[in-house]
Amino acid sequence: MKKELYDQVWELSKETALMTSVCRLLEWDQETYMPQGAIEARSMQVEKLATLAHKMGTAPKFGKLLAQLETTDVPMPRKAAVREWRRDYDLAKKLPSSFVKKWAKTTSTALHVWSEAKKNDRFKLFAPHLEKIVSLARKKADYLGFKDHPYDALLDNFEPGMNVQTLTPLFETLKGFLSGMVKKIGEQAAPDTGCLHGEFPSDKQLILAHEVLKAMGFDPLTSRLDQSVHPFCTGLHPLDTRMTTHIHADQFVPCLYGVIHEGGHGLYNNGLPPEQFGSPLGEQISLGIDESQSRMWETIVGRSLPFCRFLHPKLRATFPDQFDGVSVETLYHAINHVKPSLIRIHADELTYSLHIILRFEIEKALIEGSLKVKEIPEAWNEKMGTLFGITPPSDATGCLQDIHWSMGAIGYFPTYTLGNLYAAQFFHTFQTHHPDWKDQVAHGNLLPLREWLRQQIHCHGKTYTAAELCHRVTGAPLSPQPYIDYLTQKFSTLYTL
Amino acid sequence: MKKELYDQVWELSKETALMTSVCRLLEWDQETYMPQGAIEARSMQVEKLATLAHKMGTAPKFGKLLAQLETTDVPMPRKAAVREWRRDYDLAKKLPSSFVKKWAKTTSTALHVWSEAKKNDRFKLFAPHLEKIVSLARKKADYLGFKDHPYDALLDNFEPGMNVQTLTPLFETLKGFLSGMVKKIGEQAAPDTGCLHGEFPSDKQLILAHEVLKAMGFDPLTSRLDQSVHPFCTGLHPLDTRMTTHIHADQFVPCLYGVIHEGGHGLYNNGLPPEQFGSPLGEQISLGIDESQSRMWETIVGRSLPFCRFLHPKLRATFPDQFDGVSVETLYHAINHVKPSLIRIHADELTYSLHIILRFEIEKALIEGSLKVKEIPEAWNEKMGTLFGITPPSDATGCLQDIHWSMGAIGYFPTYTLGNLYAAQFFHTFQTHHPDWKDQVAHGNLLPLREWLRQQIHCHGKTYTAAELCHRVTGAPLSPQPYIDYLTQKFSTLYTL
Repeated sequence: MKKELYDQVWELSKETALMTSVCRLLEWDQETYMPQGAIEARSMQVEKLATLAHKMGTAPKFGKLLAQLETTDVPMPRKAAVREWRRDYDLAKKLPSSFVKKWAKTTSTALHVWSEAKKNDRFKLFAPHLEKIVSLARKKADYLGFKDHPYDALLDNFEPGMNVQTLTPLFETLKGFLSGMVKKIGEQAAPDTGCLHGEFPSDKQLILAHEVLKAMGFDPLTSRLDQSVHPFCTGLHPLDTRMTTHIHADQFVPCLYGVIHEGGHGLYNNGLPPEQFGSPLGEQISLGIDESQSRMWETIVGRSLPFCRFLHPKLRATFPDQFDGVSVETLYHAINHVKPSLIRIHADELTYSLHIILRFEIEKALIEGSLKVKEIPEAWNEKMGTLFGITPPSDATGCLQDIHWSMGAIGYFPTYTLGNLYAAQFFHTFQTHHPDWKDQVAHGNLLPLREWLRQQIHCHGKTYTAAELCHRVTGAPLSPQPYIDYLTQKFSTLYTL
Repeated sequence: MKKELYDQVWELSKETALMTSVCRLLEWDQETYMPQGAIEARSMQVEKLATLAHKMGTAPKFGKLLAQLETTDVPMPRKAAVREWRRDYDLAKKLPSSFVKKWAKTTSTALHVWSEAKKNDRFKLFAPHLEKIVSLARKKADYLGFKDHPYDALLDNFEPGMNVQTLTPLFETLKGFLSGMVKKIGEQAAPDTGCLHGEFPSDKQLILAHEVLKAMGFDPLTSRLDQSVHPFCTGLHPLDTRMTTHIHADQFVPCLYGVIHEGGHGLYNNGLPPEQFGSPLGEQISLGIDESQSRMWETIVGRSLPFCRFLHPKLRATFPDQFDGVSVETLYHAINHVKPSLIRIHADELTYSLHIILRFEIEKALIEGSLKVKEIPEAWNEKMGTLFGITPPSDATGCLQDIHWSMGAIGYFPTYTLGNLYAAQFFHTFQTHHPDWKDQVAHGNLLPLREWLRQQIHCHGKTYTAAELCHRVTGAPLSPQPYIDYLTQKFSTLYTL
């Protein structure tokens, strides 16, 4: 008996997904356990598999079957899968393989040079490579196509459907609000952050991290936590979620809150329907939605007072010397200390998005040609002055700090802040359905939120676009207001503004 | 400029090798860190990659280029690479893909049934599956082709060039010698093995294992040691050797000597020339030669008196309570305790090969049709009686103990004993070049042996066949005599025969 057309397309798509999944294992292994001497062999393996996956994803046979499938009447949610297959196929086909190769080669070299340039604080070393990348990114935008702004094409790659026109007013509103808040807070006395620094043995930090993951609903049968230099989360399959953490023996926040962050990503992956593996109905919607999950857990939940109540006895039991005489309130204030600083990844909840907006503005200007690569350091430092009132003492702690551009990931940064916005808007709805959430969280019962996210978001895969999902879950389009309200309420109380 | 023909073939071969290497990572991960819930997804990944690797290895383009290459004059050692490419290509082409699929399906099911059958001691459950496997193995032999005995085709798959005609007299000689020795030793008093059992904390066992690996010349830059239920060694690349161990908290021998064994395999992998990756000149010769490396390190070196001298102070320092008052000689006698027993993997150096010979005889009879599957338990127990003087109380501890047949690995067992024979013959030559080896080893200097093996064996990849290598290194064809001499000398002294 001949297979249904949909199943034939899915079968091919599943093969590509298997290759992608293996690529993720190769990358996970590279960051966790691979002996360093194997790096060259690993690059060859990843390149080979990525090429194969691309070839499978753009195979004429797949295109033909998909076109046939589109002429038939497919009901929802499969209709959505067809839509997404079409999108992925077209995107992949739009880039000539000569371009893909050139892109891979340019970014691979640039990544190495960036690392050197950052180490030696020499932007000039990196500049010619970044110039090539910006020029290729513009070309990429041309290949992919756009209506209004070339940056739209790049943005859409990471956040389907998003564009400069939608993003600019969102970010403008947010920028005004955030800089105002940061300024007001800057006039207040800083909280006591003594409990954040000291001695936190690695093994104890790990035990605590596992405890929190367990409370979030993780099961070792389908997930694991390892250590790597840069924390990340990758999903090989809904039943195989891999998170990593990096432990600093003199602080507990980076590991603990890093784990809660990656845990948010991990729950999204774990919550995807395994029976839909290999089809868009088994995939995350976008980077922004994915980031909304990690940021919701890390900040809205993790840095809330109720969560501190849950955490406080655990911290006292795990690090008795450190938390001797430290109250829940002191902990809560300490982990929400707002202070303009140089490095994005160490930023607090309020200043974080300002770092993103700065990058968005520079990226957009680079792509539209109104800013030259060599002008980046000046533009960066000027914006740091305006937004934060501080000037980076070096490019290493300024425009060279992030890896993204060297990898060609232009259009990626905005998804971090979109994640914050989606998170607040989703959580606002969650609160109306679970008015007792604070009590629950304070008692360590995190499962109602996980369950709600599963039902509302995770289990649907890519059935809905980000915009559709937002409307469906919250009844409104994406707006900065819920995030602004949330931050206002939280930080007004914390700092008695 | 057009690439040289040899390089074109190598290029394609390297792509296949990369896939195989990724398969090995998938398998390594499955046994070490993979969350158990991911097992189904993992099977799909492995199947997909194995299929791709097979497809690449049998691609018409590869066959055409190889045939062209064979018409040109290729000097050694590349000539050897061409010979091996031809062998692999022909072997892979001989099996129709319908057969390969049937084989994979049958063994996959059989593996699960065997596991159940062993657990419940029910050979009858496994018998119909083993019947299918034996029948498919005979078919496989027909596809692969053979001159004298169908078992030759299966044997040649694991140990190129080996056949029943060569193996039978080797094993007959060995069998006579070993049963005689075992019988004589059985009449002697058993050594004091008290130091082998007690409390050996896992973390301390691991530290000791790493120390020994370091002494063998391992570098964390190119190798690692992890834990798994069944210990193994896999090579992803000469610069990426992965070994595993299984720790029993009440014994130190399984972990320590398991690690030395896997270390022997690991050094072979580490010693292959990385610049030859993807060609036969960068691969191990055969399972027998590979096993010669592991057994040489584990038994001839590891269970020698000089090695005990090296180990003794370490054991005393690591497990002071256990080794209080235990002399080097007591340790040496304890770890060389000869005692007929039921389980192959727990067998001592003398009885081990008898377990193998028993399996060889049964496999050969099954394949030539002189023994039926249902008659295996009786044949097994009868042979156990003759060879060891003991009768298994159950099939679980008898003919159901090994996983091999359920995986279709008929013709594999003999390579274990061939490994012992090669090891003794190689080591005999090593001794003549390094008459001071005992002194060196007693002082923990294991590097001369590693270096000698690298130069004599590892660095050549598949330049020589097993028979050629044996001749080249030892000046003689494979013979049981060096092994018999080695065992005679060792155990005569140990047991004052």
